[in-house]
Amino acid sequence: MHKSIAHAVDGLVVKALKTWDMIAPGERVLIGASGGKDSAVLARDLALKKAQGRLDAELTALHIRNDFTPASMAERLAAEYEAWGLPLVTLDVAVVARLKPGRRMNCYWCSTQRRTELIRYAMEHGYTAVALGHHLDDVLETLFMNMLRKAELSTMPPVLRYRKYPLKIIRPLYLVEERQIVELAEGLGILASTCTCAYNDHSERDRVRDRVEALTKGSSQAKRNLLESLRHINAEYLP
Amino acid sequence: MHKSIAHAVDGLVVKALKTWDMIAPGERVLIGASGGKDSAVLARDLALKKAQGRLDAELTALHIRNDFTPASMAERLAAEYEAWGLPLVTLDVAVVARLKPGRRMNCYWCSTQRRTELIRYAMEHGYTAVALGHHLDDVLETLFMNMLRKAELSTMPPVLRYRKYPLKIIRPLYLVEERQIVELAEGLGILASTCTCAYNDHSERDRVRDRVEALTKGSSQAKRNLLESLRHINAEYLP
Repeated sequence: MHKSIAHAVDGLVVKALKTWDMIAPGERVLIGASGGKDSAVLARDLALKKAQGRLDAELTALHIRNDFTPASMAERLAAEYEAWGLPLVTLDVAVVARLKPGRRMNCYWCSTQRRTELIRYAMEHGYTAVALGHHLDDVLETLFMNMLRKAELSTMPPVLRYRKYPLKIIRPLYLVEERQIVELAEGLGILASTCTCAYNDHSERDRVRDRVEALTKGSSQAKRNLLESLRHINAEYLP
Repeated sequence: MHKSIAHAVDGLVVKALKTWDMIAPGERVLIGASGGKDSAVLARDLALKKAQGRLDAELTALHIRNDFTPASMAERLAAEYEAWGLPLVTLDVAVVARLKPGRRMNCYWCSTQRRTELIRYAMEHGYTAVALGHHLDDVLETLFMNMLRKAELSTMPPVLRYRKYPLKIIRPLYLVEERQIVELAEGLGILASTCTCAYNDHSERDRVRDRVEALTKGSSQAKRNLLESLRHINAEYLP
């Protein structure tokens, strides 16, 4: 692995943490550990910053295991997170059993269930922040899904505060491109696995991903400019 | 020509005029007549509405003739605008002579000169609105040029009011797609000509146009949703 990619990702996470004031000193942060490369890179990055005395926070990773999680996952995750010095909690959630009669399993519902459990655990155990592994490409995909399908200008925010609870969702990889995460994960030998359940249907998200690539021609600068434009809204020059 | 396209464009102009309160009763409107299909369709549409008693406004078209305007343009425009019952004023502006030494002619500079003369004429002659022929595809192209290159969320607004003068720029074709304009112009036998000067360089705009087509797959609904999303900005779900 080139040291430059580790350095680049580290710097972009520092910038996101600062720009959106994500973690106050001493906060208790729960990291959603899906088993994929994004959350692995996130967990490893935050753990490293803490070990180096650059992040003052209590860190715990939570893995929600469901009906579709491969049996091999537990051991692998345990080894990875132990190497990073991060406590890992595993919670079993039987998503199929939760389906109402007549309803088909789908990605949206499954991820909603897992998100709900993550938030519930954070609240019950006094965490003040839940860190998710969404990256810049995820943010742009959601932006264009919302613009193209819902006619709304919105996306995943870097920080989302709950109104009724002392809890927020933070996305420290907000400024990191997926290609950077892939390169770093490969360099680190992170053996991430994506969801392979039989109900997997990311086709709409994949279509939008292709469209964003066509819009930007895959240019990093173009992607960063799209994201940055959301912070420079000139209302006088909009309908 | 199918009557449906004339009906569709008419309705979209009515909707834009109402939505953004473009023309107050009795206003004096100066229509920029470039010689292209967009301003021709605009002028004809407004003239028709006025003739049918559906638009209470004084209408005049202004054509800025420059060094590159083909000699045949004057006669053609005169015939078209007379047929629509619209007074047409022609102003000669020698854009080449205005170039500072060492500067090369380009589209941006030329159109800025013509715009300046249009605004100046409107002010000197007591017009309260200048109507331009920009359409929905122009609006989206400018949006993405600004997002991708300037990292700013902005585009041509439907109405732009001058702070120091009782004058506004309006774009009644804001909700009309270019394909609709092309179909209507062909159906009406409008012989519009686009700029063919040797300095013509719309390459950047053309590239962005192709990217917008790739993003929307040419879908009218997707384009309309993109535009509509600019009116539904959910600040809580933005960085």
